[in-house]
Amino acid sequence: MLYNGNMEEIRIIEVKQSVFAANDRKADELRQQLKEKGTFLLNVMSSPGSGKTTALSKIINILKKDYQIGVMEADIDSDVDARTISSLTGVETIQLHTGGMCHLDAGMTAQGIDSLEDKHYDLIILENVGNLVCPAEFDTGSIANMCILSVPEGDDKPLKYPLMFEVSNFVLINKIDVLPYFDFDVDKCKENIRYRNGMADIFEICAKDGRGIEEVAEYIRKLIEDWRK
Amino acid sequence: MLYNGNMEEIRIIEVKQSVFAANDRKADELRQQLKEKGTFLLNVMSSPGSGKTTALSKIINILKKDYQIGVMEADIDSDVDARTISSLTGVETIQLHTGGMCHLDAGMTAQGIDSLEDKHYDLIILENVGNLVCPAEFDTGSIANMCILSVPEGDDKPLKYPLMFEVSNFVLINKIDVLPYFDFDVDKCKENIRYRNGMADIFEICAKDGRGIEEVAEYIRKLIEDWRK
Repeated sequence: MLYNGNMEEIRIIEVKQSVFAANDRKADELRQQLKEKGTFLLNVMSSPGSGKTTALSKIINILKKDYQIGVMEADIDSDVDARTISSLTGVETIQLHTGGMCHLDAGMTAQGIDSLEDKHYDLIILENVGNLVCPAEFDTGSIANMCILSVPEGDDKPLKYPLMFEVSNFVLINKIDVLPYFDFDVDKCKENIRYRNGMADIFEICAKDGRGIEEVAEYIRKLIEDWRK
Repeated sequence: MLYNGNMEEIRIIEVKQSVFAANDRKADELRQQLKEKGTFLLNVMSSPGSGKTTALSKIINILKKDYQIGVMEADIDSDVDARTISSLTGVETIQLHTGGMCHLDAGMTAQGIDSLEDKHYDLIILENVGNLVCPAEFDTGSIANMCILSVPEGDDKPLKYPLMFEVSNFVLINKIDVLPYFDFDVDKCKENIRYRNGMADIFEICAKDGRGIEEVAEYIRKLIEDWRK
């Protein structure tokens, strides 16, 4: 849209490119295989630095008492997150390097699952590349998608990154400990999330001090149990 | 990499895909055209919510006294940022909708420039899609790349998103007002940036209260004047 100095006129310039090759069939195949194996795949997405790794460590430490868990950490480079998850939880963790790619697709996810140690997993958690755009475009074959939005990012993000919130089954609003220092309206944020996705369940958490983590773990447990029925 | 419970073993699984089609030639063409017109194109990149729009508004309000400026706001959806920039600065601003795409390439950028009002610009600023991954992979035809990393995102981001820091001529560390509330080591962050790019100039700013903005504006002015020589 164009605004000239006196804000009178609007122009929208569409710069669409052709869509990425669909990987939906591969994702459905993977989902079918997971169903047969009884393995729930949770795909976790967010911007860089919104607290995926910290939140997951705490959630895993609750759920690992009842479930056999495997974790796949996707990153462009480094193994910081895999080291963190592994040392904080002790569960099977592999690092997936995407070779510069901004997301994982179903094929890459299947490759990752095949690379996990060969045993039964009740729950495999995929921590996707930190990116609020591309990971939402590629179905990984997951059973459920979780998205984290942190307070410093702003309550308007669901308006600017629609697809991420449309494809997420539930959203964690993280870093609520720093609410006093940012212009972030929790109610407005929830409204923006629900504008994109009326079905999304929303949790307020602080991964750092553990607030809200127990509720999220119970919610995931319920997702797994409902899916098994 | 795989860490099993006792951290003894490491496995790296590469899941590379074929690289995106090169758009380098188009970018070089655009750069040549910009040179002939005397228009400096600045490409601004960061994660969602790191403060691009706020920082740019303040920088533009300093530079607009001496330069004719145009702004292109790239977003997947919404026109929040274009409205903000336009109302805070009064300069020519257009909103580019990428139709779901996670980045701008040189062709899209050229399309945007053609859509700006037909007059001479000394400086065109492209606010790229909020994304620390993909925009770095596509040369937009810009003369310089600026990246913003904000304190809440963490000082380890240059390790995890290498290319962004490799292609950026200068980096702003934003939101230094909230340093007391986050585990963020400014010196460590600078070291991580320089590990990726020894040539990068680094500024500490707070876009909200204006700290450091004057220095960044002067730096950009110098870039423009040096390029004109």
